[in-house]
Amino acid sequence: MLAFLIRSVPLQPLHRSFSSARMEKRVAVVLAGCGVYDGSEIHEASAVLVHLSRGGAKVNMFAPNIDQMHVVNHLKGEPSDEKRNVLVESARLARGNIQDLSKLSVTEHDAVIFPGGFGAAKNLCTWAVQGKDCSVNAQVKAALQAFHGEGKPIGLCCISPVLAAKVFPGCEVTVGMEKDEKYPDTTDTAAAINQLGCKHVSKSVSESHVDQKNKLVTTSAFMCNAPIHEIFDGIGAMVRDVLKLA
Amino acid sequence: MLAFLIRSVPLQPLHRSFSSARMEKRVAVVLAGCGVYDGSEIHEASAVLVHLSRGGAKVNMFAPNIDQMHVVNHLKGEPSDEKRNVLVESARLARGNIQDLSKLSVTEHDAVIFPGGFGAAKNLCTWAVQGKDCSVNAQVKAALQAFHGEGKPIGLCCISPVLAAKVFPGCEVTVGMEKDEKYPDTTDTAAAINQLGCKHVSKSVSESHVDQKNKLVTTSAFMCNAPIHEIFDGIGAMVRDVLKLA
Repeated sequence: MLAFLIRSVPLQPLHRSFSSARMEKRVAVVLAGCGVYDGSEIHEASAVLVHLSRGGAKVNMFAPNIDQMHVVNHLKGEPSDEKRNVLVESARLARGNIQDLSKLSVTEHDAVIFPGGFGAAKNLCTWAVQGKDCSVNAQVKAALQAFHGEGKPIGLCCISPVLAAKVFPGCEVTVGMEKDEKYPDTTDTAAAINQLGCKHVSKSVSESHVDQKNKLVTTSAFMCNAPIHEIFDGIGAMVRDVLKLA
Repeated sequence: MLAFLIRSVPLQPLHRSFSSARMEKRVAVVLAGCGVYDGSEIHEASAVLVHLSRGGAKVNMFAPNIDQMHVVNHLKGEPSDEKRNVLVESARLARGNIQDLSKLSVTEHDAVIFPGGFGAAKNLCTWAVQGKDCSVNAQVKAALQAFHGEGKPIGLCCISPVLAAKVFPGCEVTVGMEKDEKYPDTTDTAAAINQLGCKHVSKSVSESHVDQKNKLVTTSAFMCNAPIHEIFDGIGAMVRDVLKLA
């Protein structure tokens, strides 16, 4: 009976809904849960998928099969006692069509994109608790190194650029505009990125920054206190730059 | 310590991120959880917010403070033993800035929009189990009747138009194109809508249908097996028609 309930109202399989039929770039999207405070930022992830679809990309989604650092009750803004799995919760964003990050093959993809949200700083690495001294999840690090090693572009937004800053010393990224009240936490985050030997480049929410040498494309997204359509458009700039490099 | 983790990486409050500063239409968005199989369809809800923001609307979000009909593990596509609350899970989509549906005041809003997803057919009404013989949640019904009574527009997408079909006998809605394989469940859903004494109007995923008399604006969204950017654009058509009527 309950199984019937899942299928009783029509909603289409993701592998068709999230891609188009023509010859396309193959892009992996790596999620970190579902919800800004303990997972992937939902609207950033959705914007990535909309822009990839419009760009004619074929998308496969992945997430690590691990427990979330914690579960946050988003109504109260407080941690709860629950346990949730990053892959299972990410499947909500993927409409069920998602794979264990251990299955991500660099040879089968032309690019990889990491949306932001606290999940990137809690479940993909430990930046939320350790800042620049964080550790990066081994599968996430391996995926980043594999795409980088093959000269394939990597897109990141919001707080996710710290993953690149940690894994690729000397790289250039943006997490927004320094010393601008619309970007209240960019200055501190940029300082930590610079302390890692990387270069933070101030960019507005509408822009992406391209590190041509490392093929890294970054944009601030919700690091900026902007209306959601401006964040959507900035992610569009990042996605288009990733597809150009792919 | 855990409370610190919630705030240690910057992400902005929704009330600023989801609205703009100029004089604006005030639109209520009613959510039904977070995830296509047991809550609001995430990408539909996000698209509604992006298009409302671009249209200069001021958005307030609401959800009923009730248990979900059930919780679906979106990775396995199977119900789990968990219990989750519709308001608490909807807060993930709202970045925490959401209110109990009991607080929704028609006088403080110019329009209301209901994204789709199974949550609309499981948590806002019982269509998923009872079809045209379903009951509609009392607060949802009251909200629909209040906006309708004041001549304020109501936007609905995907399976949500059945809420209007159930509450407003004789109304016109679309849930997609009948007898078209790209819309595999539209024909049956349309038949049930017609049996309720309403009129189903076939429209493609890119179009919205406007019932001028009842100020209902509907579009098929994920009832169509289309790439996600086409669904995004169709929701844009619906949102723009809602704002025109508001």
